[in-house]
Amino acid sequence: MTGKTAFETQYGFARKDVRLETWRLSPFNRWSFQNVGELVPSVHVAAAPGGEGQAKSVGTLLEEKVSFAGGSETVGSFLKRSDTDGLTILKGGKLVGDWSAPHMPFGARHIIFSISKSVTAILAGILQGEGLFDPNAPVTHYIPEAKSSAYSDASVRNVLDMTVSLDFEEAYLDPQSAFARYRRSTLWNPGGGSESLAAFLLTLQRLAEPHGQTYRYRSPNSDMLGILVERASGKRVSQLLSEKLWLPLGAASEISVTVDMEGTARTAGGMSMTPRDLARIGEMMRQGGTANGRRIVPEAWVRDTVATGGSFEAWQRGTMAFLFPKGRYRNKWYQTGHDSGAFCGIGIHGQWLYVNPKTEVVIAKMSSQPEPVDDRLDLDLVSFFEALSTMV
Amino acid sequence: MTGKTAFETQYGFARKDVRLETWRLSPFNRWSFQNVGELVPSVHVAAAPGGEGQAKSVGTLLEEKVSFAGGSETVGSFLKRSDTDGLTILKGGKLVGDWSAPHMPFGARHIIFSISKSVTAILAGILQGEGLFDPNAPVTHYIPEAKSSAYSDASVRNVLDMTVSLDFEEAYLDPQSAFARYRRSTLWNPGGGSESLAAFLLTLQRLAEPHGQTYRYRSPNSDMLGILVERASGKRVSQLLSEKLWLPLGAASEISVTVDMEGTARTAGGMSMTPRDLARIGEMMRQGGTANGRRIVPEAWVRDTVATGGSFEAWQRGTMAFLFPKGRYRNKWYQTGHDSGAFCGIGIHGQWLYVNPKTEVVIAKMSSQPEPVDDRLDLDLVSFFEALSTMV
Repeated sequence: MTGKTAFETQYGFARKDVRLETWRLSPFNRWSFQNVGELVPSVHVAAAPGGEGQAKSVGTLLEEKVSFAGGSETVGSFLKRSDTDGLTILKGGKLVGDWSAPHMPFGARHIIFSISKSVTAILAGILQGEGLFDPNAPVTHYIPEAKSSAYSDASVRNVLDMTVSLDFEEAYLDPQSAFARYRRSTLWNPGGGSESLAAFLLTLQRLAEPHGQTYRYRSPNSDMLGILVERASGKRVSQLLSEKLWLPLGAASEISVTVDMEGTARTAGGMSMTPRDLARIGEMMRQGGTANGRRIVPEAWVRDTVATGGSFEAWQRGTMAFLFPKGRYRNKWYQTGHDSGAFCGIGIHGQWLYVNPKTEVVIAKMSSQPEPVDDRLDLDLVSFFEALSTMV
Repeated sequence: MTGKTAFETQYGFARKDVRLETWRLSPFNRWSFQNVGELVPSVHVAAAPGGEGQAKSVGTLLEEKVSFAGGSETVGSFLKRSDTDGLTILKGGKLVGDWSAPHMPFGARHIIFSISKSVTAILAGILQGEGLFDPNAPVTHYIPEAKSSAYSDASVRNVLDMTVSLDFEEAYLDPQSAFARYRRSTLWNPGGGSESLAAFLLTLQRLAEPHGQTYRYRSPNSDMLGILVERASGKRVSQLLSEKLWLPLGAASEISVTVDMEGTARTAGGMSMTPRDLARIGEMMRQGGTANGRRIVPEAWVRDTVATGGSFEAWQRGTMAFLFPKGRYRNKWYQTGHDSGAFCGIGIHGQWLYVNPKTEVVIAKMSSQPEPVDDRLDLDLVSFFEALSTMV
């Protein structure tokens, strides 16, 4: 056999070029984001019985025009410009349609990055409803060994709302920085296996500013949330996901989560699922916490999370107010502050779960954008979701 | 939450105690052997549509007596003594029953270690039938860069039959030994990620003895076989497994295979599957290469593999003749040389796929024996399988 392999023909690069050093770079992420378990050890949670249905075309929707700040563009063109891998749209709980890039087979799972935070928060809400989890407790109530860390005087609420006054910056170039140690501890970058994620988190220190004042988006908080729900319940995140979310939701495919050297789930970003199952989560939230006629998470928790809770002042002091000028962040979900009442989960490289309560539309979009963060594209994405949710 | 976690209550140890340093040790292997993907990055291959049926009790079989060299014992007692995790028995292609240890839920997948070699050889047989793979070719026909290694003048046949004159010993204590580098290159031990499995294999050197004379069980040969079938077909092992074996076989659950830092499958030992699916492979071999009325691998290849091929002399010169005094090893399968015509695949820590053509019985046994190799227990295991295959 000489010449290109089947893999090279399909993806344009060799499998061996996708490693821990390269997997989040373009073009490798067009494959790796659907195959994270080949790069990072992962726990798999089985689907509910039944399996997934067939793909449904979105039809002529692709040819319809959407207006952006810079002009108008067809839906199909924008999906490509925003490096979409997979898309599912629901309206009123019914499937509108799916779209998949040629490199993403329908039914494939895809990493959702920081929407994992929003999913983990649902577990926290469920445990809160069961009386097992108190968002107003100090972190040290559940994790006594956090007493020497930034979390020593932080509340669970600070963790849930990203208002921990955490001294942590994304310093890409210093291999001894906390950021580099963080990446290694999650096994997402080369060189991991000597410091666990939990051990790393407990070394983080705080800023002088009191907790609770400023929205500071720091992913380690959301890994801490995973440990908090494990401590509160005595169950692993994977077990909680299975029993309390995945099976009741009727998820049609597996969910997987990357784990560290001692099995701690990367709840800040390591979950992979299908666009359909992500949309099912959005629909459950739109329904106020029910799915298939069954309550999954308390309605009051959902209302607080997507509509009434969170601090507008803390959000204004943060760095993401440009995206949602009237927004808030509550329990790892974004409230857009739009008249539509839209709320969403967002992950780097273009992962979105957008829910528009007014039009009853849920949009799950998974992507392989080359840049982890792209502020200008994010503004277009929000315009796109608002428009799309009135078009279908 | 204080006290034991759900995991600790179920398994008797904490999840965080199971790491790359410990996962193959008892008691951790009672969990890790069913959850290898949480320790080592793995590729997953989907089941055929349909799903697995319900478990079926083996009934009073557990109370029946089996004779060993040291006395007689009930089936149930022996299953426990040999640290069985899961067992499935077929007769005449029909399910006799299943048995599972309390720590292995029915339907769970379990690592089969070196039975992975036997499965990979089936892929080679399939490609041979398609005219894409020549067992008599030199290894360098498919892997030209092997010209400076032990494989420079070895044939594919030598690789298939473990008669490469390979200078490789299992030296547990020297971290710079080839054995230690091998373990790291597969990502099965801590410290991997700097040398790929393929790069490691190409550094191996040969002994003075000519190839083809002595059965030398050296696992790197079987990882090399995985690379050989990939080169011959232009497809990844995972794709070959899916298209040519797993779907045609009607496998009811996923198969997974651990991969190295560049995605090379650990075909020498990294596959996990359910006992039922392993039994389906045995039944396909018993049927001469067909399943569900469909040919999977040529009948002549199966006959050569399980009955007529292989060198008795090479086997006699090897170190495993004590187990099968009249045996042979062909295409990664063991011919027992018994009057029953039994053949099998064997993996460390007690993985067995035993096929008795005379009684039409197939036995898949997955275990978590504390020791990787236990010669005395192996003798009892062979007695057990021979007896069991006449009892059901």
